[in-house]
Amino acid sequence: MTKTISVDLGPNSYEVRIGRGLLDTLGSTAAAIPDATSVVVICDSKVAELYGPAAMSSFEGQSLASTLVDFPPGEQHKTLATYGQLMDALLGISPPIDRSAVVVALGGGVTGDLTGFVAATALRGLRWIQCPTTLLADVDASVGGKTAVDHAAGKNMIGAFHQPSAVLIDVDTLKTLGEIEIRNGLAECVKHAVIRDEGLLDFIEQNAEAICACDPDVMTEFVARNVAIKAAVVAADEREMDQRAHLNFGHTIGHAIEVFIGYEKIPHGQGVALGMIAACRMAVNRGIAEASVEERIRNILEQLCLPVSWSALDAKQIWRIMQHDKKVRGGRVRMILPSGLGKVEIYDDITEESVREALEAIGP
Amino acid sequence: MTKTISVDLGPNSYEVRIGRGLLDTLGSTAAAIPDATSVVVICDSKVAELYGPAAMSSFEGQSLASTLVDFPPGEQHKTLATYGQLMDALLGISPPIDRSAVVVALGGGVTGDLTGFVAATALRGLRWIQCPTTLLADVDASVGGKTAVDHAAGKNMIGAFHQPSAVLIDVDTLKTLGEIEIRNGLAECVKHAVIRDEGLLDFIEQNAEAICACDPDVMTEFVARNVAIKAAVVAADEREMDQRAHLNFGHTIGHAIEVFIGYEKIPHGQGVALGMIAACRMAVNRGIAEASVEERIRNILEQLCLPVSWSALDAKQIWRIMQHDKKVRGGRVRMILPSGLGKVEIYDDITEESVREALEAIGP
Repeated sequence: MTKTISVDLGPNSYEVRIGRGLLDTLGSTAAAIPDATSVVVICDSKVAELYGPAAMSSFEGQSLASTLVDFPPGEQHKTLATYGQLMDALLGISPPIDRSAVVVALGGGVTGDLTGFVAATALRGLRWIQCPTTLLADVDASVGGKTAVDHAAGKNMIGAFHQPSAVLIDVDTLKTLGEIEIRNGLAECVKHAVIRDEGLLDFIEQNAEAICACDPDVMTEFVARNVAIKAAVVAADEREMDQRAHLNFGHTIGHAIEVFIGYEKIPHGQGVALGMIAACRMAVNRGIAEASVEERIRNILEQLCLPVSWSALDAKQIWRIMQHDKKVRGGRVRMILPSGLGKVEIYDDITEESVREALEAIGP
Repeated sequence: MTKTISVDLGPNSYEVRIGRGLLDTLGSTAAAIPDATSVVVICDSKVAELYGPAAMSSFEGQSLASTLVDFPPGEQHKTLATYGQLMDALLGISPPIDRSAVVVALGGGVTGDLTGFVAATALRGLRWIQCPTTLLADVDASVGGKTAVDHAAGKNMIGAFHQPSAVLIDVDTLKTLGEIEIRNGLAECVKHAVIRDEGLLDFIEQNAEAICACDPDVMTEFVARNVAIKAAVVAADEREMDQRAHLNFGHTIGHAIEVFIGYEKIPHGQGVALGMIAACRMAVNRGIAEASVEERIRNILEQLCLPVSWSALDAKQIWRIMQHDKKVRGGRVRMILPSGLGKVEIYDDITEESVREALEAIGP
């Protein structure tokens, strides 16, 4: 069973295919891109070992020159330095690549963001294919065309919007994921349900065990539903204006919590889980959502083994960090708050006091 | 007298204003950009000395935080290394900039390309204003949204398309240009005339002396006519497909000549001048243009003190370099050839033999 979701972005439209064994179709997918003559697969050294051979053998029989370039694994390498090294490798290929080259991002979010930024800017833009291998990358980074590297001043501070030509999600690659990585993805799935699709919350509650075990058939259905939500949001708003901002649900406070605790000490999914609960509490405090909304989200997150509380969060510091978020415009902090399950609104009148009160929901 | 040319790119449309003393209007131009709260002016240290004070004092009375960041002058600094340093400076500003910040590129082509690439990628894209201060940047880089840095593998190998919010061309800044810099711009002006506007050739012939002396009123008219041509071409084809390729007239062989001779040994304008004559000869050899086309271009270039011949050009090497041009797609070299004055066509059946014969036009 393969599912296909269309991301409708006018001339930049593309398809996301989700199913088992799709890595074997990478070669034919690349060959189907008009005028493609060469392919450069970029991945980290860990993914190169796990999936490099399958990816590269998919090019056999296609008339495409193929090269694999790897870099050291880990978010600490999502930097301009690694970007420069990848550019050196890409532009140093012999014979030299030209604009007919296709770049492939094979790996998780770091690889997708970094490789996408390379593809966006090499020769002022090359076509690229995303082959995410983590649940987070499957349901989040694979749709929307956001590419970036981190900077000392913050995550994803340098980057570009660059839509891929195609996305291949091989759910078989999920079996090599660790628990923390799976949960990082699950937090975003809960987010999708809260902002657009209450039915997806039912699906998670009913299939929690199979989801946590990454059962391939359940995951094909589950990932496809998530991709469809993100695709609809992004199609409605390619440039992160109003609709796309809804995807920041849980992330405004969540990011600030991650910065406060330290990125290396709390996985992204856990920050988002905490951020979603705090945002729900803020909505309840404002009287725009019922207490049951917060309660149900909290229960689902617990079912998925995501944290629902954290000790020693300093509201004053978290508020200060929120004010430096790169999505802030003109100094106003914006938050996405649920008015029910499957429905959110943007608020830009957030105060330090309201953040302090919301953080009580995730206090020790 | 101020002239205004509209660059019509749908949602990315903007105006180019050309005239005397326009640097004084930088502050009000930035303040007119919706939600702009801060401005970062980027220039090289030479331009900082010449025009930094005028640029910065234009922000007085505007409610905009303004910062000037400079870098060492020279094409050798148009690199990822300088880009990284500018990012460090930009993202290190206190209080931190957000997406309401506006970047200003104040200077020549290097500054425009480098600063534009910073603006294109900082926080995944900031609004920016171009204030070109050289004739080449006025008539070429100021329209089209091309941004880039150089790489060991070639010029402009890394970059993005990012349209500015506005362009201010203060023709008074031309008075500080050296002769070589003026001629670099003049070569592009001749190119514009050949590809679109025979009447502009008449204008150049009639005003050659005032143009070479950078008379402000003549330059306002002259630059405006050139900007209008480039704006029309770019509007017809934002993404460098068919129409925009016409702007490469003189550049395919010209770039190869520059690489062959060494960028540091021949100014860009001289390479383009030689490339235009060679392209004219190729058109004459193919029977698509009359010999008088080559003759008139050659005479105008001589009138503007641009070279019309060069010794010791190796056709084999130049052909090899042409094949590595980043505009090559699928291995086919494309050239723009005149079919008359003001009219060009794209040809992709270029052979080594035809290049060798065309180079005879600029032989010693």
